[in-house]
Amino acid sequence: MFRTSFESYVEKIDAFLECLSWDEGTMGQSMRYSLVGGGKRIRPVLALAAAEAVGGQADSILPSACALELIHTYSLIHDDLPAMDNDDYRRGRLANHKVFGEGKAILAGDGLLTYAFELIARPLPVNAERQLRVIQEVAQAAGPEGMVLGQVLDLEAEGKTLTLGEIEQIHQHKTGAMLVVSARMGGILGGGTEAQIQALTRYAQALGLAFQIKDDILDLEGDSATLGKPAQSDLEQEKSTYPSLLGLAGAKEELAVKIKEAHEALSVFTQSVDFLHSLADYIADRMH
Amino acid sequence: MFRTSFESYVEKIDAFLECLSWDEGTMGQSMRYSLVGGGKRIRPVLALAAAEAVGGQADSILPSACALELIHTYSLIHDDLPAMDNDDYRRGRLANHKVFGEGKAILAGDGLLTYAFELIARPLPVNAERQLRVIQEVAQAAGPEGMVLGQVLDLEAEGKTLTLGEIEQIHQHKTGAMLVVSARMGGILGGGTEAQIQALTRYAQALGLAFQIKDDILDLEGDSATLGKPAQSDLEQEKSTYPSLLGLAGAKEELAVKIKEAHEALSVFTQSVDFLHSLADYIADRMH
Repeated sequence: MFRTSFESYVEKIDAFLECLSWDEGTMGQSMRYSLVGGGKRIRPVLALAAAEAVGGQADSILPSACALELIHTYSLIHDDLPAMDNDDYRRGRLANHKVFGEGKAILAGDGLLTYAFELIARPLPVNAERQLRVIQEVAQAAGPEGMVLGQVLDLEAEGKTLTLGEIEQIHQHKTGAMLVVSARMGGILGGGTEAQIQALTRYAQALGLAFQIKDDILDLEGDSATLGKPAQSDLEQEKSTYPSLLGLAGAKEELAVKIKEAHEALSVFTQSVDFLHSLADYIADRMH
Repeated sequence: MFRTSFESYVEKIDAFLECLSWDEGTMGQSMRYSLVGGGKRIRPVLALAAAEAVGGQADSILPSACALELIHTYSLIHDDLPAMDNDDYRRGRLANHKVFGEGKAILAGDGLLTYAFELIARPLPVNAERQLRVIQEVAQAAGPEGMVLGQVLDLEAEGKTLTLGEIEQIHQHKTGAMLVVSARMGGILGGGTEAQIQALTRYAQALGLAFQIKDDILDLEGDSATLGKPAQSDLEQEKSTYPSLLGLAGAKEELAVKIKEAHEALSVFTQSVDFLHSLADYIADRMH
């Protein structure tokens, strides 16, 4: 049931993303290479499911939801650059800059980020003030007080031992803010009440940290082939992670706490939020 | 008169930009370094003046107009990177990446671009549908079908001899699209009619090409100190420019044609558009 719903969301998202067409030259090729090269599509899925949770139509917010995937993809392209994390592989394939060169990779990221705002400002059958609010919130979550700040904090943390509080601060900015705004986008554009939007916020905050803890655990326990990236890279780079600070058992306990918080946040909904419950369990149980 | 009006626009813009505050760390420093480090502020000035030309209030669209300067600044930071034009100086000061390093420079650009959309989506005392239309148009002008494409075309043109048509295509994307959307922003948010928005578009198209022709002429005739960048760099890099294709006299003639087109486009306005007329003359006569 969950798998079917998830796949049906992903199908809509992938169909939309595959129809995006830009210049036929290397620019468009480079953007498409990273955009359609796999990825779990968790952010747009979250937005679509949140819209339905508040009684809205998933289909009617599809361009806005897909914009979240463009922003995510741009952040991965820039993250992999030699001047940043210097990763040669992403999702089991060569990183964008290894295929198209650094200059074009920077521009592909810039192009995806900018085009995301073109998508998110497209006319939708929803209240225009709500749409403006979403654009502002997405820009905040992705920008210098959100994801970009998280990236800077992450760069500056290299080679340092961090406290749990510092790790959470990085994650909340680097990945958490975009997950939270994904859920809020669905709630706001779907016509949800402030209480529902608040509940979706708490849900996504817990989900975001759970996602990161699980990532750290998978890096220790997973194998490179399933992960699509080298396992145990955190250990090698002496990165501070949940398992390195809490131990593996402690990290698993913390993961369970966050998943429980996610479930509890959904209690305010009177209609079915089965999918969002299952998504939380999926985050905890995933193998890659 | 013109100088006073121009300075009064710039004062408002600079006051707004100087009040933007981000994280106190290197991220905020790096963004501010490039944002408040000079610049003619032509894009926001154009937006404010266009708003007034259609009877709107400049002050009420200030955040949106200033967003254009953030987008322009981000493009300069990324443009100067070693993987792109590899320039060490900008506006007479060290380029962002020379001060903060490549990684932070990429992120400062990303941050400015993203924050521009936060600014442009802020609640304004104008029709929300018009605001959404502006956001979409700005994203189109800045993105993979506008400025970012122009940057790619420019990268790919390195070392090649271009035709006049190819040069114009690059400029129309790289700088023209943003100038056009600046004028359109003012027209749309200021409450202009479609005919007025169309006239502003033609005006800014001519202005944009004039600006570029003048840039090429200044590179040949200007001196490095006044320009704030090395003069005759186009010659050294064997770049195709208006003077290299049309000769210096031909380029000056073409400049005059474009300035005339800009003036003519303004003929549909019944109220005073003195400032926009003077701005066109200023573009033609500027020394840097």
